[in-house]
Amino acid sequence: MSAVRVHNFAISLDGFATGEGPTFEAPFGHAGIRLHEWAFATRFGRASHGQPGGSTGVDNAYAERFGPGIGAEIMGRGKFGPQTGPWEDLGTDREWRGWWGPNPPFHTPVFVLTHHPRPSIEMEGGTVFHFIDAAPKQALDLAREAAGDLDVRIGGGPTIVRDFLTANLIDSMHVAVVPILLGRGTRLWDGQEGLEERFDIETVSSPSGITHLSFTRRV
Amino acid sequence: MSAVRVHNFAISLDGFATGEGPTFEAPFGHAGIRLHEWAFATRFGRASHGQPGGSTGVDNAYAERFGPGIGAEIMGRGKFGPQTGPWEDLGTDREWRGWWGPNPPFHTPVFVLTHHPRPSIEMEGGTVFHFIDAAPKQALDLAREAAGDLDVRIGGGPTIVRDFLTANLIDSMHVAVVPILLGRGTRLWDGQEGLEERFDIETVSSPSGITHLSFTRRV
Repeated sequence: MSAVRVHNFAISLDGFATGEGPTFEAPFGHAGIRLHEWAFATRFGRASHGQPGGSTGVDNAYAERFGPGIGAEIMGRGKFGPQTGPWEDLGTDREWRGWWGPNPPFHTPVFVLTHHPRPSIEMEGGTVFHFIDAAPKQALDLAREAAGDLDVRIGGGPTIVRDFLTANLIDSMHVAVVPILLGRGTRLWDGQEGLEERFDIETVSSPSGITHLSFTRRV
Repeated sequence: MSAVRVHNFAISLDGFATGEGPTFEAPFGHAGIRLHEWAFATRFGRASHGQPGGSTGVDNAYAERFGPGIGAEIMGRGKFGPQTGPWEDLGTDREWRGWWGPNPPFHTPVFVLTHHPRPSIEMEGGTVFHFIDAAPKQALDLAREAAGDLDVRIGGGPTIVRDFLTANLIDSMHVAVVPILLGRGTRLWDGQEGLEERFDIETVSSPSGITHLSFTRRV
């Protein structure tokens, strides 16, 4: 069966995956871009933005695993946009097509979990956003069907990753710990006591200051 | 001026330095010994318990820095014992002399911060417990006087380390991140937003699975 993977999921030393107060201008709230600068500095990250260069060490080795073998992504509505509530009530915000421009970096079907379904949005480059109101297991069934033989990526945010961890649906997870203290926002680890009993955990620190955690579910 | 240092301060991946519900039998509550097994496995840790052997790699290199150059320790009452409230009300518990037996591993004056002062206790091997009701800066002044030219160690628990960080009194801090998820207890990082602006932070992962964080205050 295809695997369920998390990649390049960045948290602060104090465990926050997003800062407080996300807006259209600041998707990660007061965290700004600080959780993701390490990825932008890699060859993978620069190529994603059409730029040459970038580091080719351990940060890049992890970052590059984002795409290959993935046939679908599942994300929370909070990753898709900062709006809450029914789309019909949002005025011009209902035209929102995500933060990523016309050609998002997913290139597969993306299932956006929301209590407010809406018609799918087809983007350039193979990304199609589907909006579904589903529990983790149901969403995974849909994503697996869309992914064919390929794997499913759980894209976040933290609440979604937690929900899938709690449902024991994740096979492997890469977490990048950034050496900053955000102090507030949404934590990844809440309610995950004893996770080490289900996963082998490997840690490696990068000269960039990032610590990469690899969680591999025990068979 | 002598430096103020933190050593071998262990936290879980989710940031807890102690588990929930410390008792006489379980000083770290439901965490048990899991936060400190890495140190017991080092040559330093084994020698501290009169045992031969132990690892001599990066974990040991960090662990050994605990003692040299230290002339006094400051700890919270919660590190000294699980009792709370006035000592007079504690019955036979008022005979409590700490968890460490007749010859504690400190070998210096130790200032125990408590709202309930009591007479000092002199132990074997140079450790003298003084019980003082003082703010961080006052306590540090007393400890520095006792330490002479030597450094002062902030021994924890997490509330004490936080108080000294908040008061900007710590010069260097070694935190050992243990790859377990405790889920509950007392967190180290609460209220420490932006700590990276005052400290250089270095991370190194050990083959044991521990990640060592070195905080060095910028000059």
